[in-house]
Order: sequence, then C-alpha cells, then structure tokens
Amino acid sequence: MPATLAELVARFGGELLGDGHTRVNQVAPLDRALPDQIGFVAQQKYLSQLAHTRAGALILPPEARDASSLPRILTSNPYLYFARVSAWLNPVPTPPAGVHPAASVADGAQIAVDACIGAGAVIGAGAQVGARSVIGANCVLGEGVKIGEDCLLHANVTVYHGCEIGDRAILHAGCVIGADGFGFAPDDGRWEKIPQIGRVLIGHDVEIGANTTIDRGALEDTVIEEGVKLDNQIQIAHNVVIGAHTAIAACTGIAGSARIGRHCTIGGAAMIFGHIEIADGTRISTNTLITKSLPKAGTYTSALPFSEHETWQKNAVHMRNLDKLVKRVKALERKIGELENKS
Amino acid sequence: MPATLAELVARFGGELLGDGHTRVNQVAPLDRALPDQIGFVAQQKYLSQLAHTRAGALILPPEARDASSLPRILTSNPYLYFARVSAWLNPVPTPPAGVHPAASVADGAQIAVDACIGAGAVIGAGAQVGARSVIGANCVLGEGVKIGEDCLLHANVTVYHGCEIGDRAILHAGCVIGADGFGFAPDDGRWEKIPQIGRVLIGHDVEIGANTTIDRGALEDTVIEEGVKLDNQIQIAHNVVIGAHTAIAACTGIAGSARIGRHCTIGGAAMIFGHIEIADGTRISTNTLITKSLPKAGTYTSALPFSEHETWQKNAVHMRNLDKLVKRVKALERKIGELENKS
Amino acid sequence: MPATLAELVARFGGELLGDGHTRVNQVAPLDRALPDQIGFVAQQKYLSQLAHTRAGALILPPEARDASSLPRILTSNPYLYFARVSAWLNPVPTPPAGVHPAASVADGAQIAVDACIGAGAVIGAGAQVGARSVIGANCVLGEGVKIGEDCLLHANVTVYHGCEIGDRAILHAGCVIGADGFGFAPDDGRWEKIPQIGRVLIGHDVEIGANTTIDRGALEDTVIEEGVKLDNQIQIAHNVVIGAHTAIAACTGIAGSARIGRHCTIGGAAMIFGHIEIADGTRISTNTLITKSLPKAGTYTSALPFSEHETWQKNAVHMRNLDKLVKRVKALERKIGELENKS
Repeated sequence: MPATLAELVARFGGELLGDGHTRVNQVAPLDRALPDQIGFVAQQKYLSQLAHTRAGALILPPEARDASSLPRILTSNPYLYFARVSAWLNPVPTPPAGVHPAASVADGAQIAVDACIGAGAVIGAGAQVGARSVIGANCVLGEGVKIGEDCLLHANVTVYHGCEIGDRAILHAGCVIGADGFGFAPDDGRWEKIPQIGRVLIGHDVEIGANTTIDRGALEDTVIEEGVKLDNQIQIAHNVVIGAHTAIAACTGIAGSARIGRHCTIGGAAMIFGHIEIADGTRISTNTLITKSLPKAGTYTSALPFSEHETWQKNAVHMRNLDKLVKRVKALERKIGELENKS
Repeated sequence: MPATLAELVARFGGELLGDGHTRVNQVAPLDRALPDQIGFVAQQKYLSQLAHTRAGALILPPEARDASSLPRILTSNPYLYFARVSAWLNPVPTPPAGVHPAASVADGAQIAVDACIGAGAVIGAGAQVGARSVIGANCVLGEGVKIGEDCLLHANVTVYHGCEIGDRAILHAGCVIGADGFGFAPDDGRWEKIPQIGRVLIGHDVEIGANTTIDRGALEDTVIEEGVKLDNQIQIAHNVVIGAHTAIAACTGIAGSARIGRHCTIGGAAMIFGHIEIADGTRISTNTLITKSLPKAGTYTSALPFSEHETWQKNAVHMRNLDKLVKRVKALERKIGELENKS
Repeated sequence: MPATLAELVARFGGELLGDGHTRVNQVAPLDRALPDQIGFVAQQKYLSQLAHTRAGALILPPEARDASSLPRILTSNPYLYFARVSAWLNPVPTPPAGVHPAASVADGAQIAVDACIGAGAVIGAGAQVGARSVIGANCVLGEGVKIGEDCLLHANVTVYHGCEIGDRAILHAGCVIGADGFGFAPDDGRWEKIPQIGRVLIGHDVEIGANTTIDRGALEDTVIEEGVKLDNQIQIAHNVVIGAHTAIAACTGIAGSARIGRHCTIGGAAMIFGHIEIADGTRISTNTLITKSLPKAGTYTSALPFSEHETWQKNAVHMRNLDKLVKRVKALERKIGELENKS
C-alpha cells in the first residue's frame, strides 16, 4: 500500500519539503533503504548517516531541516511519525469474518458477526467476542471470557474462564491469561490448594507477549490497566496490579499482590517481590531484584557487573566475606587512631 | 453453593461461637468482605483488621476467641480452614464426561468412561486417561502417555510420548511435559544430538504451572514426586529428581541431574546447577544461584541488593575490583604492624 | 532395533575388540546397564566405574584398550560414538505421511506428499512443508511460512507468517517463532506500536526448546544460523543474529539487535544486552549479565556466590556501601603514609 509524501503529510501532519509526489512503498533503516523507501533520523547524532543513504525520502526533526536535499517530512517526533507511516504502509491483514468450520463454539457464546474465529479455536459457554476481533487458530477461551472490540489474539493463546480483556488488545501466541495463582496452605508437610477465585482484568490497548503468563487473583482480581505493554515470557502472579501505560521487558517476574505504578518502565529479567508498591514513573533496570516498596520515582538497579572468569573468581570469594573485610578496615581505623594519638 | 457455619463445622471441624445458622456465600478478605461472606485472621498481628470488617462471619485462631462478637469458627490453622471453606464454596466445575466430537483420539487409546476429553484435544495411540480426569481443549497427549484419575489438564498442555502422571494432578495451560533434554555431543565444531530416551514420571497430587517445562530423561527418567507444587514458567531439565512436597516459585530453573530434596521451598527465579544434591527441607531464596550441593538444610541466598542507579554505579565498579581492595587492606595491615612495632 | 558390535563398527567405525556377534538392545549408564546393553566411558577418570558394570559391551577411548575384557569398541570420541549408537538403537518413530483429517490446510499451501500434518494442525495460505517433515498436533503455521525437509515440529508450536525454517530442524512443543518484537514509540505518555515487518530466518540443523520464543525483526530479519541449539524457555528479541553452531542453555534472554558469534556457548539464565556483539567462540557462564560487546573470545561471568542467609545478610549491607568502604581504605592509606613519613 504505497503512499506519496503529500498523502502522508495530509494524514499524519508534519512539514513537507521537496516533491510531494514522491512515492514510498516501505520504511527502512537508512543504511539499507532503497529509492522507493523512506528512512528516518530520530536524533541529531545519527544525522551523519544521511550522507550515504539511498532512501528516496526522509523523516527528520525540524532542526535537521537542511541536513538533506531529499524529499523529506519534518516533525517533532520522527520515531513516532515513522511508526505511523510504517503502520500505514504495512496494514495488519484481517482474515475474513466468521467462524472457521474447524472451530468449536459453545452454545450461548456471543460472537460479533464481523469477528473472526480461527481454525481449531475453542470458545466456552457464555464467552463474548467483540466486533472485528480476531481469535487465532487453536486459541482457547474459557467460559464467560469477554474479549473487547478490535482485539487480535494470535495462535495458541489460552484465556481461562471469567477473564476480561478490553478493546484493541494484542495477545501473542502461547500467552496464558488467568491460570491459578500459586497459593497453598501448609498442612502438616503437605500443601493444600487455595482456590483462586479472582479473575484477570485487562484494559484497553494492552499488548501481551508470547508465552507470557498472568495469573488470576486469589480472592480479588489481577489487574492490567490500559495501555500496558508486556514483552515475552513475563510472569505476573495473582493479585498484581500494573498501572496504565507501564512497559515491561521480557523474562521479568512480578510476585503476588505487587502494585506497579503507572508509566513505569521495567527492564528485562527484573524480579519484583510480592506485596510491595512501586511509584508511578519508576524505572527498574535489567536483571534487577526489587525487594521492597519504591515510594519515590527514580531509576533502580542491582545487576552485578561481569568480568573475565578468572577475575570474577578472584573477586567472588571476597563477596562472601565482605563483612570480615569491613571489620578489618574498622580495626585498622582504630589502630591508626591510636598511632595518631601517640605521635 | 452457600453453607451455614454449622454445616462448615460439621464438615471441617473447629469450634463454633455464635449463630450456627449464619449463612455464607463466599470467602473474602476482611477489608472487602460483605455481610454474606466469611473472612479469616491467620495471625495475631492482623486482629486489628477485625474492627472495621463488614464480614458476616469469621475464622479465627483459638487465642482470638474474644476478638470479635461476630459468628465465628475457632481453629488452630485458620488459613488451612479458610482454604477448605473456599474450596467448598467454590467447587471446580466439572465438564460433562465424554469425548468432544472435535477431539482426535487414536485407536487403542484407553479413555475412562467418566473422563472428559475437550474439543481439539489429540490423544495418541496407547495413551490412557483415568477416571474422572479432564483433558482440556487443544491438549496433546503423545503415544503411551498415562494420566491418572481425577486429573485436570487445562487447555493447550502437551505431554510427550511415554510420560506418566499420577492421580489428582493439575496441569496448567501451556506446560510441556517430556520434551527432549538438552544433550549434544560436540563433533568437530558441530553438535550431535544425544537421543533422550528417558521419560517424565509425575507422582500424585502434583500441580504444574502455566508454561512450565519438564524435560524427559536422557537415559533414565526425570522424576517429580508426589505433592510437588510448581509455579509458572519453571524449567526442569533432564534427569532431575524433585522430592515429595517441595514447592517451587515461578521462573526458577533447575539444571540436568540435580536432585532436590523433599519438603524444600525454592523462591522465584532461583537457578540450580546440575549434578548437585539439595538436602530435604532446604529453603532457597528468590533470585539465588546454587552452584554446589547443599548437604545441610538451611536458608541460602545470593541476591544482590538494589540501590538507586547512581549509587549502584559507584558501588558496581568496586565489585569488579574487590580483589585489589582486599590486597590494599592487607598492605595496610602489614604497614600498621610495622608502625606499631616501631612505636 | 538391536545391533551387533560388528554391525555398529561397520556403520560408525572404531576398533572392535572381543566378540563382534555380541548383540546390544539399548544404551545405558554403566551403573545400570544390563547384559544386553552397551555402556561407555568418555574420560579416563570414570574408568573405575568399569569394575562393577553388568553391561554386555562397552565404548572406550583407545587409551582404555585394556581397561576391560568385555566386548568393546575403541574410538577417539566415545561420547559422540555413544550418541550415534543410541540414535541407531532408538530411531525416532515417523508417523504415517499425509494430512490428518482433523488438520486444517488452507488453499494454496504446498505440503510434500511424504510430509505428515498432525491432527488439529492449522497451515496458512501459501505455506510450504518440505519432504518428510512432521508438523505435530495443534501446531499453527501462518501464511507463507516455509518449513524445510526432514523437520520435526512437536505439538503446539506456532510459527508466524512469513518465517522460514531450514532442513532437519527440531522445534519443541510450545515454542513461538516470529511473534512481534517489543517495539513502541513513546507518544506523550502512551506507547505507539512499531510494526514489526521483518521475519525470523532459521538455518539447517537447528533445535529449539519447549516454550522458547524468537521474535520477528522490526525492519530486517531475526536470524538463527545453521546448527544452533537452543534449550527451553529462551527469549530472543527482534533483529538478533545468532551465529552458526552456538548452543544456549535454558532461560537465557537476548535483547534486541544483539549479534552473537559462531560456536559460542551460553549458560542458563544469562541475559545479554541489545545492540552488542559477542565474538565467535565466547563462553558465557550461567546467570551472567553481559552489558557490553565482547570483542575477544573468553569466558565471562557475573554470578553472585550464595551463602547461608544470615551470612548473606551481613555481607549484603556492605555491597550497597562499597564506595564508602573504598573511601575509608583510601583515607587509611593517606594517614598511614603520613605516619610513615613522620616516623
């Protein structure tokens, strides 16, 4: 779905410089762009890449107005503009509406007439699928599940009974919404299961990565607020609340009843303890373990720097003996003090 | 399925105080309980929450006998009692017995007449499914798989050929039992696959979380003993043995041929080396890496505490130079000794 | 499929000592081998295990020629030889060719006549499945997916549209190939999705573990070169390139646009930053975080050693205050210097 620069500016705004009839078929990185493709520069420091690009057009920040003579669009947020142009040039193909003959839809499920239920999908009794939503091949929706409008569930997604998902959600393959939280009461050396009777409630405009798992609440609900973006293989335990527009990178785990604020960004493979609260706007680094509440926004880190293995071995032994080292330093300070007093 | 307090005490024991005709419909946390709901207090320190609860009835420890005038049940283990009341009030719905017309059952598979095989499930030749077990939608059981009685496999579970699961097991969506262990012989820069000819054997009363993976043994079997509880996204490598009634939190990985004792608890995102043994009753903290055998029960930890990022940066550089720091302290100790001798 | 030692030597080479008519039915570890089974010793240090084995035959290195009087095969790489014998004795069962009646194959998909499409599998329009490849039950291949020859996709695998997989690949259950990379442009507190228009390209002889996820590229492709072996629950972000014959253990995460060299080995639960390059032949230890490029092959580590919890507590507080400790040591050094000058 090619477009001219004039069409793009009419749709997405920005200032056009050069020939508005220039036609682009695709977005591309500057160093690989072809003459029928449009590239972008988001930051001043990448402007040098313009010298050798073969791109036919550019998206640039206003201050780079004269950095190229190619047909170009000036905009205050080139990266965002680029995202929108890419979405326009690469529309998500919509499968034809209707229920595939190899899907299994229980009596009483309500499927919008323009929704699409893929081959092998299984929809439970009382489930609802909203207008224009796509339920991918071999997905399973439990009883009473509600899926909003314009959602896209890729293949092999599982949503347990009673869970609800807002509009425009994207769920990637293999993610599991609403499995039982991990709750057991000890009984004389054995574990007795605590029924998990809450649900998972997911807001509008949420994206959930492949093989990510979000457990249902024990008594109350697990809540993912609107605009949250979750990467792959994230684990969210029961009763967690994730505030609106928070983004979490892959392999992160969040323990039960943690409350994550709005507009947080959490790096990959972070681990967050249960029953703590994280302030709005907090940033947590990759591989960081958060063990207590963070009432104040900021950036928090606990990663251990790597070394060559032999160096690491020499240092690691001391990590286990820091307390002794500190005591030795204290003893030295005392002795120095005594010597200074004497001299 | 509401119940009166008298019915609960008749079924689960405990001492009834107040009106036994009091009817409860649901369990709830104290701060959100409604008049037709029953709350509980497990520990003395939470008794203050009783002041404002709207719950209609309570489960309390004997020492809190007079902490409320609400109808109440006294029991030595309120949390366990609460779990049982919740299970009674919230029975797991059992789908109707029989094989869904959209399931595929191979010739020679033995399905108990009162088992339930969901839509899209695929059962291999020679597989067995025991009485009252439920195989969820789109599950796949390989050839010769044995599933015991009263099991519940949620949707999209995969069990590879030859693996065996005991009675009353719960397997959550997306878990994979019996994939090949990671075994390769190096051959001049290439990797040659070692056939994984063992199985996975899972005992009675085991629960396995969503998207958890348990690999089959290389030569012998991978074994999960009875009563083990595994959270989501756990990885268990080939030939691991997990002792009875051990509970493991999410995102933990256990490398090949490790032997975990009975009654252990392992925190989330722990990593355990292969070919080591962990004593019965050991506790391993969240995010902890265990690199050698733990012959003695205890609590073991290796997590790095987090800091604000700027603080962390200042400290991190020293973590890579601890050995040098220790040498500086040694030099100081020597010099101090010399000065002390002189003075 | 039993074999005589003479047959094995004819097929796989090596030097036969003892009765070539000795028939073996299975491979086994030395301490559990039965008289109709063949064991092996790969390293000199395990030769003592030969004393008590009941195995009927052995695979030994040449220097152990006289370490046993059992019928035996001498070879310079006993472990590799053992892998090949095991593969010979335990051939992977091949399901009958053809499309299962409960599979859904879109018009225009090209399925080789001797390929096997399992029950519940869903094959998109324009997809290709090569000769003798097996697509497991409930797998989903998107539009235009290409699967080479002699591949084995176990159950419940998802391959998104446009991704390509070479010959002899093995994909384990639940793995997801080609989900969208995690790319969003910030827009005034909200996240706007960057379309992920690249693909995943996977070379020949690649094995991918259960529930591993490999995201499609943002603009260019994510590439897994030939002979790469990936364990379970690995996360590979968009635009990553993994060099040929690299092996990665379970639970590892690799962030976007990282380039991993050829012949690397990466331990379990390692995390590798995005936009960095790792040299060919690099070894990364378990639980290690790599935050910058490694231009030189070597072994790199950042794991924190564990302790008993009480010891850890004493040490951990100092980890957050290393900078202060170093300043104290500096102050001591200065004072000592002053005292030495005076004395």
